[in-house]
Amino acid sequence: MSLTADERCQPLRGAALDEVLSSTDNFLFDCDGVLWRGNRALDGAPAAVNALKRLGKRVFFVTNNSRRTRAMHREKLRRLGFRAARRDVYGSAFLAAQFLRLEAPPHGRVYVIGDAAVCRELSDAGISYVEAGPEPAFGDVEQWTNLPLEPDVGAVLVAFDEHFSYMKLIKACCYLARPGCLFLATNRDHAELVAPGRVLPVTGSLLAAVETGAARQATVLGKPSPFILRCIAATSPGGALDPARTLIVGDRLDMDVAFGNACGLRSVLALSGVSSLEDARGCLAEPARRHHVPDFYIESVADLLGAAQIQANPGAGEEEGEGEDDSDGGV
Amino acid sequence: MSLTADERCQPLRGAALDEVLSSTDNFLFDCDGVLWRGNRALDGAPAAVNALKRLGKRVFFVTNNSRRTRAMHREKLRRLGFRAARRDVYGSAFLAAQFLRLEAPPHGRVYVIGDAAVCRELSDAGISYVEAGPEPAFGDVEQWTNLPLEPDVGAVLVAFDEHFSYMKLIKACCYLARPGCLFLATNRDHAELVAPGRVLPVTGSLLAAVETGAARQATVLGKPSPFILRCIAATSPGGALDPARTLIVGDRLDMDVAFGNACGLRSVLALSGVSSLEDARGCLAEPARRHHVPDFYIESVADLLGAAQIQANPGAGEEEGEGEDDSDGGV
Repeated sequence: MSLTADERCQPLRGAALDEVLSSTDNFLFDCDGVLWRGNRALDGAPAAVNALKRLGKRVFFVTNNSRRTRAMHREKLRRLGFRAARRDVYGSAFLAAQFLRLEAPPHGRVYVIGDAAVCRELSDAGISYVEAGPEPAFGDVEQWTNLPLEPDVGAVLVAFDEHFSYMKLIKACCYLARPGCLFLATNRDHAELVAPGRVLPVTGSLLAAVETGAARQATVLGKPSPFILRCIAATSPGGALDPARTLIVGDRLDMDVAFGNACGLRSVLALSGVSSLEDARGCLAEPARRHHVPDFYIESVADLLGAAQIQANPGAGEEEGEGEDDSDGGV
Repeated sequence: MSLTADERCQPLRGAALDEVLSSTDNFLFDCDGVLWRGNRALDGAPAAVNALKRLGKRVFFVTNNSRRTRAMHREKLRRLGFRAARRDVYGSAFLAAQFLRLEAPPHGRVYVIGDAAVCRELSDAGISYVEAGPEPAFGDVEQWTNLPLEPDVGAVLVAFDEHFSYMKLIKACCYLARPGCLFLATNRDHAELVAPGRVLPVTGSLLAAVETGAARQATVLGKPSPFILRCIAATSPGGALDPARTLIVGDRLDMDVAFGNACGLRSVLALSGVSSLEDARGCLAEPARRHHVPDFYIESVADLLGAAQIQANPGAGEEEGEGEDDSDGGV
């Protein structure tokens, strides 16, 4: 199914939903704002996702959050009622580590601005690294100019790091001045509005400091990077996804929808998180942001539940509320 | 004197230099890379600057370095042999403080990402502030979401801060989410190459993190801001400068030359620092950077010395080396 510009940004319901579900084999779900908010699953999300799995769909959890390993993401998914295996989770820390393993083995160790989850994924991928930990400021210009550097660093990886400091910024910029030094980042998300008036800057803000100081642009491995599909092809037991039969559901136009559109997937904006329907319609009017326009939108992932249940059990369609509710049935 | 594009980026010597010196009343000098490098005056720079002062020229020292107060800059200038008074120094910390005093009194205190010099200039200008000092990371998302904030902050000022940390970044972004909160920065210089392979990121890198997290752009008060001329007009005992009779000498096309060109001053690139003659000629070819093309270039500030001495003492021209050398004669 190919949509023209005028047909995009449509509600996904009724016949369109039935058609999309039956012509889609693979579902990629963003997590925060789509499946959960903080430590609470969004209403109906576990039931919808689990129903898709019962239909035999391949389901992947694709998140830019770099603070959790695959295993940590899987634990959270299960705790909130989602059927999930470690191999179904593609977090940005895992993606960055796999990029280094599969496509860009660094000449030397990786200098990490990031936390223990990033280091764990690197370690699991067989990539050696320099972990920074807290590095508070000391000294003066003279000492900063002569800061001890590791001779064998050949890549810098920027992820979320609550211990981000001026010392780390200096080191990253010095390493990035070395010829051939790779420059990677898990993601470019800027900030999250966590409460009224409360903004938590995330990886993209730290990355902006490093990119500005180093006068270089990082390669980002989380959404919207197309590496995600290559990584799934290389690491998922089920192998590569057919983009034409793959759908991404996310709450951010600039990450989830941009990723889906860039890779030829069908894109669905869930209105349960960051981007609004007005934002999406605004992109329709702006040529520079046409690639942020979703094919469809839903209020929340729960909107997928009814149709998924009907397809699983066609006779049950008329009887509202029938169908198994296994929203707490973690595997 | 008005130069067409083809006449720009010329060497300043001979008759052109004589003409420029006699038609210029006011000289603005950048400091690092122009008058000194690290803790050493560049050869001939003190003699040249002091000779201009003896000619009765008004001389100002205009630096984006936010780590020194006016008094600290003055001390360094004198130590290196320049005749300088505190009132001749326009550093970016002073400029930011004066902008708040003269043009944008904040509704509340200023949250400072910066060091003691910035706080001292604010204090001298009668602006109240919240000084951060070291703020190492602690806690988790829950605690970051509820970080104590001052109720009366009405402006955020970003300057160089070796104690830059994630906690400061959160606070700055939260304050900047308040309606009406001012967002200022001393300067946008990105980084300095302090030794081969050794990069020290400076204010612009920290500012990029705050701007990205807050999704706002700061008003910069150091070069290339035209506020500098308004500030001189308001605070210098000699009053406003006639731009047509004012010249800026600097080593950075994107800061010094851009400032001069934006304000209708004559601009001179000194090749003793960051930008090269090739950089300057490259700007001639790029429409987007035509405003970075200097009117003139010199190898170093010492190139101004001969002509200044001759004008001071017309009879002495033939006798090389004559003329008083008071390069160590601080006032």
